[in-house]
Amino acid sequence: MQPSTSNFTSSTPTFPLNAWYACAYDVEVGREILARTICNQKMVLYRTLDGQVCALADACWHRLLPLSMGRLEGDELVCGYHGLHYNAKGRCTSMPSQEGVNPSACVKSYPVVERHRLIWVWTGDPALADPSLIADLHWNQHPDWAADGKLIHVKCDYRLVIDNLMDLTHETYVHGSSIGNAAVAEAPFVATHGDKTATITRWMENIEAPPFWANQLFQARGYKGPVDRWQIIRFEAPSTVTIDVGVAPAGSGAVPNAAGESDRSQGVNGYVLNTMTPETDQTCHYFWAIARNYSLNEQRLTHQMREGVAGIFREDELILEAQQQAINANPGHPFYNLNIDAGAMWARRLIDKMTEAERDKPLAGSPKSFVLKQVA
Amino acid sequence: MQPSTSNFTSSTPTFPLNAWYACAYDVEVGREILARTICNQKMVLYRTLDGQVCALADACWHRLLPLSMGRLEGDELVCGYHGLHYNAKGRCTSMPSQEGVNPSACVKSYPVVERHRLIWVWTGDPALADPSLIADLHWNQHPDWAADGKLIHVKCDYRLVIDNLMDLTHETYVHGSSIGNAAVAEAPFVATHGDKTATITRWMENIEAPPFWANQLFQARGYKGPVDRWQIIRFEAPSTVTIDVGVAPAGSGAVPNAAGESDRSQGVNGYVLNTMTPETDQTCHYFWAIARNYSLNEQRLTHQMREGVAGIFREDELILEAQQQAINANPGHPFYNLNIDAGAMWARRLIDKMTEAERDKPLAGSPKSFVLKQVA
Amino acid sequence: MQPSTSNFTSSTPTFPLNAWYACAYDVEVGREILARTICNQKMVLYRTLDGQVCALADACWHRLLPLSMGRLEGDELVCGYHGLHYNAKGRCTSMPSQEGVNPSACVKSYPVVERHRLIWVWTGDPALADPSLIADLHWNQHPDWAADGKLIHVKCDYRLVIDNLMDLTHETYVHGSSIGNAAVAEAPFVATHGDKTATITRWMENIEAPPFWANQLFQARGYKGPVDRWQIIRFEAPSTVTIDVGVAPAGSGAVPNAAGESDRSQGVNGYVLNTMTPETDQTCHYFWAIARNYSLNEQRLTHQMREGVAGIFREDELILEAQQQAINANPGHPFYNLNIDAGAMWARRLIDKMTEAERDKPLAGSPKSFVLKQVA
Repeated sequence: MQPSTSNFTSSTPTFPLNAWYACAYDVEVGREILARTICNQKMVLYRTLDGQVCALADACWHRLLPLSMGRLEGDELVCGYHGLHYNAKGRCTSMPSQEGVNPSACVKSYPVVERHRLIWVWTGDPALADPSLIADLHWNQHPDWAADGKLIHVKCDYRLVIDNLMDLTHETYVHGSSIGNAAVAEAPFVATHGDKTATITRWMENIEAPPFWANQLFQARGYKGPVDRWQIIRFEAPSTVTIDVGVAPAGSGAVPNAAGESDRSQGVNGYVLNTMTPETDQTCHYFWAIARNYSLNEQRLTHQMREGVAGIFREDELILEAQQQAINANPGHPFYNLNIDAGAMWARRLIDKMTEAERDKPLAGSPKSFVLKQVA
Repeated sequence: MQPSTSNFTSSTPTFPLNAWYACAYDVEVGREILARTICNQKMVLYRTLDGQVCALADACWHRLLPLSMGRLEGDELVCGYHGLHYNAKGRCTSMPSQEGVNPSACVKSYPVVERHRLIWVWTGDPALADPSLIADLHWNQHPDWAADGKLIHVKCDYRLVIDNLMDLTHETYVHGSSIGNAAVAEAPFVATHGDKTATITRWMENIEAPPFWANQLFQARGYKGPVDRWQIIRFEAPSTVTIDVGVAPAGSGAVPNAAGESDRSQGVNGYVLNTMTPETDQTCHYFWAIARNYSLNEQRLTHQMREGVAGIFREDELILEAQQQAINANPGHPFYNLNIDAGAMWARRLIDKMTEAERDKPLAGSPKSFVLKQVA
Repeated sequence: MQPSTSNFTSSTPTFPLNAWYACAYDVEVGREILARTICNQKMVLYRTLDGQVCALADACWHRLLPLSMGRLEGDELVCGYHGLHYNAKGRCTSMPSQEGVNPSACVKSYPVVERHRLIWVWTGDPALADPSLIADLHWNQHPDWAADGKLIHVKCDYRLVIDNLMDLTHETYVHGSSIGNAAVAEAPFVATHGDKTATITRWMENIEAPPFWANQLFQARGYKGPVDRWQIIRFEAPSTVTIDVGVAPAGSGAVPNAAGESDRSQGVNGYVLNTMTPETDQTCHYFWAIARNYSLNEQRLTHQMREGVAGIFREDELILEAQQQAINANPGHPFYNLNIDAGAMWARRLIDKMTEAERDKPLAGSPKSFVLKQVA
């Protein structure tokens, strides 16, 4: 058996730019200027008076002072050094001690969409910023689901988080004191993939439910007994992973039939929602939430599930940050892929496909400073 | 209108070496060894028994231990590792466990002059160290003036401080809570320059004096009423900026006539004295003082003016250090020049002229370690 | 007189790899995993159930997580991420969710020997790891000697510590408040060297003993009066220095005769044992101990001597770390050699000979990651 390998520390970019990335939770952006770095690009986020979010480069055209050190004046951003004004599109509208405004004076403006409780920013060619490409996280804001989550900052390449999520056998070793369970590691899984997605499907039929799910199923549906249990991990390029988890009474129709039909109505279902945004090549913003489709009004349960997941993810953080440091300390060392890495391997191939496509065809609208230099 | 630009992050040196730089206030140097880095050169400063200041490289010839870890023995500096002695000219005068002293054993000695309450060091070719080239800061030590100041350490290229001082419109935005005032930004100014100087002159005739100056003029000269006010910013290459500020009764002769004659005898006058010394390419020692030519014996006023300026400069520090970080985060980004940048633009041209002259003709006496290697 | 120089900051490796280096005191290694970096190589140390020490590379073959974040299971090390098991030879013995184990799956295992209270590791070609090459520190564990010591971490090239130990004139300047003494600096010494050793021998005959030794000699042997005193510093490449120190009644036979015979039986003798292990190019682990051959059962004296030396070595640490920083700040600056540097100069030549031999003939078994890549 020869392992396949991926050369993790190659010089290809670690992320595509022509993509939507979550840059903030909706509630984080308002009438205070928020500074955040997305894909190595420093930006400011704020809402105009009518509530629209806008994202501008965080460096004044004139002398580069971070605009996040300035202030809002109506819909405009005023630089804190010499008072240049910028409108929500990044156009300079006034300069100190002079009447005219240089027509080229502007800062980069990023396409932004607010969806599913997150603010999404497009870091590449604005002409390609199609909102239909935003990853599906509708469970985060849907009347059939109760959801809550957090933003954490992890000092690792965002792809290490994807590797982590695409394989749940690590639960046995990393989360041994909480959710770790040898049974999961032993269940067979099916790996499939599409143009932009990779999926790991694992069904455990007619088994005894683990304590947490047994309890949820009894509380929500009044059922005790053997269950069919599922874990369906779905990666959507470049950086979103949803994990569909749950149990239903054994034989109640949850297991898909040959036609792919499934009836989960007697079961309970959760979704672990994850979208990771590169901050730099070696740090990321990790937005996650946990959703459920039962006991929707039990705020206590919402709180309990969110904090439970937060505790588990802190265990992953330690591993991920140590792994990043080890990668840096071992330049050129390959990653070997085991059977368990099938999902991660496909996820990375889909990411690589996106970054390679960009390498071959440089972005038209991207290198703003180049354009400005031409003018000057 | 096309803005002019300066490519701030080019590879030319950021400062000339053939220049006098302030390296310490007079009172900082005595019989304790003072270590300071000037233009990327680590040096030690101390006074010999007769009070002369000397400046030597801060690394022992033998094994490089910082001489600042040693001690003074009379006029000599003794290394703290093996006890080599150096005299005030940097010549090694004794070595441990041997009688002879290698004739090439020495550390670099820098030309030093004490003037206007500052110690000035020449970092370039010693043969060119003409004391008449020291920038004029006589207000700092003159019977007609009362002056006091401080040394602050700013984590930015010293030229950013010069940009800041050469344009006072930033007061409106940076110092809005203290001295900021839209009126100044609106007054027209005249920019002139010479071979080593650039000057911004702004006269505001027959206006109401701002509160601070109105009060000073009444206390010192008993006058209330409209004033002629001036701000004359003068840059002297490579790194000194004096700002001549004040008010006089309107029409009392302070405004220069066609022949350039001016009588300020009925007014009050202050000088903001600034000289910035590169520590490294991205940090500087900033020596400043505030002088006045009235109420000379009021120590309370001296204290009040010094602390007032100190508070204002702390606001600038925040801006300057953030700007330096932004420049580093945006390599290759040009600086665009607005009308307000006329003074800074000329200052930088004069600095560039000095650094370019040195680039074309490398210093004869400078690369000491090279000379020593030849001997060895 | 022309000084010889050594170009300290050249690009040759700072240490040979084909050598035994102390990596831990025996008591540091047990059933807890100890992580330590030796010659830029991160490794884990632990004892198997039968007490044998083993040293493995501290990065899992699969995804590089430090194995020091895992746990021991019997004699095996279990990775804390996905549970791969490694035996004490570094061979992977089990992988998660699959039955087979890739035959190439392993982490590097280092030859290890436990001797004289230290664990020694061989960082180069395992085929050359001959235990007879381990430096002689038998005084550290011998019935005729009472010894105790410490491990300190010094932020400098290990060779700076060797320079320091090979010349004791620095005592006068660095340890002026404790053991410094102009007399030592004035006594002549003899420098000799062999293929792997360099020795500095200094005899001071018929002198008054310094207070410490006078007291030891009286307590241990009941003698008061003039003494013959010796300091014999012996370097053994690449990084061990033993210092044989002591006094005997003058004329009692301690001074070697023409035939090299010597009788120290009426004297008292100590050994300062030092072995420095490169952690990185600019940091080192410094293992030292102080041994004596008299009053063996006086635990109070053992404690006093150990703490006395610890205090002196802290003074050296300050010097050595400052010197390292100065070297970095003065790239290309040569080291000049004075008479007192004869021992250090020979020590460095012997080290250079070892590193040059390796440069000409690259290690056969060393670049493990290369071998694994070939397989993959």
